[in-house]
Amino acid sequence: MKTLDSKELFYAFSADAKPLMTVAQGESFALETRDCFSNQLCSDEDTVDTLDWNDINPATGPVEIQGVRTGDIVRFDIEKLEMTGKSVMITLPGSGALGGISQTTTRVLDNEDGVLTLPTEKGVLKLPLKPMIGVIGVSPAEGSIPTGTPDTHGGNMDCTKIGQGASLFLKAAVDGAMFGCGDVHALMGDGEVLVCGAETPARVTVSARAIAARELPTPFLETEDQYIAIASAETVDKATEDATENMFRFLTDIAGLSEGDAGRLMTLVGNVMICQIVDPQKTARFEFPKAVLAELGFAGIE
Amino acid sequence: MKTLDSKELFYAFSADAKPLMTVAQGESFALETRDCFSNQLCSDEDTVDTLDWNDINPATGPVEIQGVRTGDIVRFDIEKLEMTGKSVMITLPGSGALGGISQTTTRVLDNEDGVLTLPTEKGVLKLPLKPMIGVIGVSPAEGSIPTGTPDTHGGNMDCTKIGQGASLFLKAAVDGAMFGCGDVHALMGDGEVLVCGAETPARVTVSARAIAARELPTPFLETEDQYIAIASAETVDKATEDATENMFRFLTDIAGLSEGDAGRLMTLVGNVMICQIVDPQKTARFEFPKAVLAELGFAGIE
Repeated sequence: MKTLDSKELFYAFSADAKPLMTVAQGESFALETRDCFSNQLCSDEDTVDTLDWNDINPATGPVEIQGVRTGDIVRFDIEKLEMTGKSVMITLPGSGALGGISQTTTRVLDNEDGVLTLPTEKGVLKLPLKPMIGVIGVSPAEGSIPTGTPDTHGGNMDCTKIGQGASLFLKAAVDGAMFGCGDVHALMGDGEVLVCGAETPARVTVSARAIAARELPTPFLETEDQYIAIASAETVDKATEDATENMFRFLTDIAGLSEGDAGRLMTLVGNVMICQIVDPQKTARFEFPKAVLAELGFAGIE
Repeated sequence: MKTLDSKELFYAFSADAKPLMTVAQGESFALETRDCFSNQLCSDEDTVDTLDWNDINPATGPVEIQGVRTGDIVRFDIEKLEMTGKSVMITLPGSGALGGISQTTTRVLDNEDGVLTLPTEKGVLKLPLKPMIGVIGVSPAEGSIPTGTPDTHGGNMDCTKIGQGASLFLKAAVDGAMFGCGDVHALMGDGEVLVCGAETPARVTVSARAIAARELPTPFLETEDQYIAIASAETVDKATEDATENMFRFLTDIAGLSEGDAGRLMTLVGNVMICQIVDPQKTARFEFPKAVLAELGFAGIE
């Protein structure tokens, strides 16, 4: 399988990105990723004071998808997501959504046998892993966007549902799409209030192909049981509005519901949810159950 | 059982509220509630154009809890939540989070046998009910707050987790607390993007008592498996920040975790979530799994 190792990385999704690998549509390929600190924190004694801040949030890539043209909607199937090292977490005063954090700390944590082992002052917890990809995206139409920032190209969306088995739909803004990912978390809650989850190096296996549904609002995600519109904006308010609007467009334009049916179903069984509230832009999502659309005869995104 | 019928209602939680019923602490009592349109929409032909807008969002009450003093934290156990009529939904252009709604409609829906029956243009759906209370609160310290507005006194929080079996903790800002509730939904998703769920008259059975934990940040909710801090503010951004801060205070001040353990657990297994994004103030919540705290020896809120 074609593979990029974790030294083949970048720090911004750029319109003029040059591919480090080229793959065919439908061909499985692998990206080995570093954790968001570029694997610099190896023990509890390595604090963020020692970090090289120029080497943060690396993404592995870019990967050119052959035959994809500007304007195409590309479906990225996350075929496999494997942890390849221990997890690390930090606390840093003034960072994230918790004003009560006063100490700078590092914790390196085991993540074997499907659980994260977290020592606390009151006992050791074994927390089930839910691996997910924090940074995943394609080149923007112009300029460059740091890997730490989420936007319509994807990027640092920190969506807990982007895991093994999920399919992420992004719009190619340049020929070949120029895909990359990194910042995998072995476990993270919605919000990412400390600005970190269990940050973990990983190996991500993906395949990609252009699809016919050119009106699909992106970023868009399909999981085993949900359709999910994802949106990032300067405020959480705007991100929730945009995700809601994009789900309405999906339900009316792609799934063929009337405006009234789409609205009633969104307010009854759809959920406005948070991805993260701590990055340079905030990210929200709107989740809608696939089973309801299947009952109404929708065959899926083609 | 002491009961208030649905004609015994109010439209604002007020500092100078006079009780319509007085109950002892721990005594079960019942409130019969109207739907948010005060049961004015009885068929699909009754549109919102015919509504008396002075009779919207009624809450049944107020109920004085004997022996409760200003400053007490009161635990309200939702012992039973029963639908007592059909559900109604509306669409109204310019209202809610969906810019694509162009038609004013009313739908009166059956909600028997545990399912909401929703006819659509592509078939009839049977959606499992998840009854919840939209408006629930106590008197504020001063002035009055319309029942349609959520704030620290509770009010129109539209939190999908406030259902049968849940316990809501609110701070009494006046002697007797002066409790009331209404605006029950047979089914609603997080966000309430149409500004309505399946609006339903109901009968709510409650008991209330002051508890010892005077530092508990409120509104606070306990369900079968979650502790939930709820916060309302002018923006979704501020509401999520306040809910997050309140959960951090709960975990450190009440559950006794260190700041580092609280932060790591909040970012790993806690979730920032949305209640609603359409009311005069927006409401968010922070959910934290009870099982994790039980493993660390926390005996519960006393």
